[in-house]
Amino acid sequence: MQSQFEPASGTRDFLAAEFEEREQAFGIIRSVFQRYGYEPLQTPAFERLDVLLGKYGEDGDKLVFKILRRGEHEASGEADLALRYDLTVPLARVAAAYEGRLPSPYKRYAMGPVWRADRPGRGRFREFVQCDLDTLGSTSLLADAEAVSAQHDALAELGIGDFTILLNSRHVLSGLLEAFKVPAGLGTGVLISLDKLDKLAPGEVVAELTARGLSEGQAGDLVTTMTAPDAVDRIRVVLKPSEAGVAGLDEVDGLLALVGPQVPPGRIAFTPRMVRGLSYYTGPIWEVVAPGVPGSIGSGGRYDHLIAQLGGPDVPATGSSLGIERILALRPSSSALQRGRLDVAVTIMDEDLAAASFGLAAAARSAGLRASVYLGASGKLGKQLKWAGDQGARWCLIYGHREQEAGLVKVRNMLTREESDVPAADLASYLTLAAD
Amino acid sequence: MQSQFEPASGTRDFLAAEFEEREQAFGIIRSVFQRYGYEPLQTPAFERLDVLLGKYGEDGDKLVFKILRRGEHEASGEADLALRYDLTVPLARVAAAYEGRLPSPYKRYAMGPVWRADRPGRGRFREFVQCDLDTLGSTSLLADAEAVSAQHDALAELGIGDFTILLNSRHVLSGLLEAFKVPAGLGTGVLISLDKLDKLAPGEVVAELTARGLSEGQAGDLVTTMTAPDAVDRIRVVLKPSEAGVAGLDEVDGLLALVGPQVPPGRIAFTPRMVRGLSYYTGPIWEVVAPGVPGSIGSGGRYDHLIAQLGGPDVPATGSSLGIERILALRPSSSALQRGRLDVAVTIMDEDLAAASFGLAAAARSAGLRASVYLGASGKLGKQLKWAGDQGARWCLIYGHREQEAGLVKVRNMLTREESDVPAADLASYLTLAAD
Repeated sequence: MQSQFEPASGTRDFLAAEFEEREQAFGIIRSVFQRYGYEPLQTPAFERLDVLLGKYGEDGDKLVFKILRRGEHEASGEADLALRYDLTVPLARVAAAYEGRLPSPYKRYAMGPVWRADRPGRGRFREFVQCDLDTLGSTSLLADAEAVSAQHDALAELGIGDFTILLNSRHVLSGLLEAFKVPAGLGTGVLISLDKLDKLAPGEVVAELTARGLSEGQAGDLVTTMTAPDAVDRIRVVLKPSEAGVAGLDEVDGLLALVGPQVPPGRIAFTPRMVRGLSYYTGPIWEVVAPGVPGSIGSGGRYDHLIAQLGGPDVPATGSSLGIERILALRPSSSALQRGRLDVAVTIMDEDLAAASFGLAAAARSAGLRASVYLGASGKLGKQLKWAGDQGARWCLIYGHREQEAGLVKVRNMLTREESDVPAADLASYLTLAAD
Repeated sequence: MQSQFEPASGTRDFLAAEFEEREQAFGIIRSVFQRYGYEPLQTPAFERLDVLLGKYGEDGDKLVFKILRRGEHEASGEADLALRYDLTVPLARVAAAYEGRLPSPYKRYAMGPVWRADRPGRGRFREFVQCDLDTLGSTSLLADAEAVSAQHDALAELGIGDFTILLNSRHVLSGLLEAFKVPAGLGTGVLISLDKLDKLAPGEVVAELTARGLSEGQAGDLVTTMTAPDAVDRIRVVLKPSEAGVAGLDEVDGLLALVGPQVPPGRIAFTPRMVRGLSYYTGPIWEVVAPGVPGSIGSGGRYDHLIAQLGGPDVPATGSSLGIERILALRPSSSALQRGRLDVAVTIMDEDLAAASFGLAAAARSAGLRASVYLGASGKLGKQLKWAGDQGARWCLIYGHREQEAGLVKVRNMLTREESDVPAADLASYLTLAAD
């Protein structure tokens, strides 16, 4: 492809096959989310700049695509609008805008593109789809359980065979810091280091922890406990004396009990070392991992004060997000979608017969089939049959003067090459039966 | 709504009911277009600035939303990307990018938002959806007929009862200029004035035409012919001696013959005064009007050199576009979509029973129903029944300790208020039957 015709860096054109594969996946996710009673919300592609800036930290602000002011202000080079960076800040704005008019709790899902001025790379785009569900206004653990369970069902219905939901709670992490007597000021840093236990060797994490100011003994104990084969059992014991720790275990166990009947054993696991980078979580947190995929294919958690921080009302909230671009890459491609553009290809044997042939295509469409007449200039049957084949058509209709005189249509099965003469008036019902 | 929480000027938030109404309409259109063998194409929200600028005329260029350069260039106030202004320029880019790899002819549809920095007003938005179908690479009148017919079917299936397709041809207009001996330099201006015959009095149009340089006699003849009760018959006679005129009549009559069996009489009418503003049309042109709607709800035509002018390959092309935002406003709202967020609302009678109740919601979902547990803090049945009613639920499930002991679920029909005791194990099949 010549570079001047490529889509802008970090964006993609989706031609038919890929578009349909994506739409099919979005349709599955939408239908799962709706079954859980989440309702759709669609917000504009851009927001006023002040709605977005300051919400994503300094690094995030730099990745916001800003839109130049219009008209006489254009020369100033200032921006007053920006493309949305995620679906959460627009949710906070909507929660503020429609406060009192939204159902309570407000369970919504949103699926749509977001834009980030990130350096494009393998699997990293400047335009990509996010797929979120959130419940605002409920402190119930049932709301967290719905978020986990709906995410699980979506992945299962998408045909992702092998994935695990790693479950933890911010209160478990607080309890751990308390139990291991980590000084208050070091807590965040310690958690950041613990989060690396899935990538780094235990010794490396110990070194990080001591560099952060833990004693060798503390760091060693902490890492030994977290990486032991029976880590979960040990941590349950360690957390007993901590109020936060007990509350965290209750959250985790409560959630496991709620989703247990829906989520098969082995698909969800209490994972005390799992931290999640984002500091705004306040309760249960989870991350979905799949073999061979770096990072996660989904995540979620409770974030009870974030909506207020983002400019919305101060409501408790919980939700989950699917890493849909990664998930799409994992899905087996659906052969059903590759079956071609047309079911029925209609030849044009003579200009005189064009209107009649156009009518045959209409009859096929009335049977719910995809049908088109030949739009090329050649009257040759061979060339038109080749076109029918290229279109992946299951049948080709041939209607020449001989067929016209007999009141028939020749229906050619493109697979078997068998041809049947069908009375023109019966075409729609013939094709309806044949398509079953 | 406080103004700081409103969406940016000219854009809209779509909450559940409106979103679903729009999606339903888009789904209908998509399925009609697919039945005609048009395949989907989705291009990014933004393009490189040079792809867009210079393609829409000076006025259009001003309405393109430009995106500020990133990183160290941001301070320069320059833009290097821009939001797409329509779906045609991206089509031209794709046609160039994938030349030789796209099917020929390439029949594609595209539905998605476009952005224009227009002054927002009643029914005029800065973010709105376009809905186009186009065929590249065919000179056949059948391709034009498909574009008309697919547009007709989409409007009919959307339930738009009353609309008319005004059909004309650029060649008819050329023939008229020739027949009335309009000097070559005045042609465009004369057509612009004739286009106003649906809004202005004949005398006003005559005045415009003479101001443009036609003689009083010429202008009077032209307007008299165009506005006569038998205008179409008169024009057919007038065009006879003109080669362009005859070609135009052949196009119009050919198209009417092709779509005749599909498009009911009275739904399409040869309308010689219909000009369409856009200068790039080269063959048949059409416009769809509906009573009480200013302007058109759809349009289309053949534009054989535009794709090359827009930076694509030099291919013949024809297509049509639905004015979907106006059409959505015309549609009767679908009561089926208002039926509520939930089919099944599940009460939580006791914290002990939360997991079991969560499981009942899952059972309802396995029957394909929308189900959610109560996420509020109140244990009171009355409050939970009110919630179930607010959700528009058809059934409310009640599962307290009494039901638990008996192995039953109380299923309350929210409409009749009847309650049935259903064995817990039979719930899914009971609801499946009840939902039919």
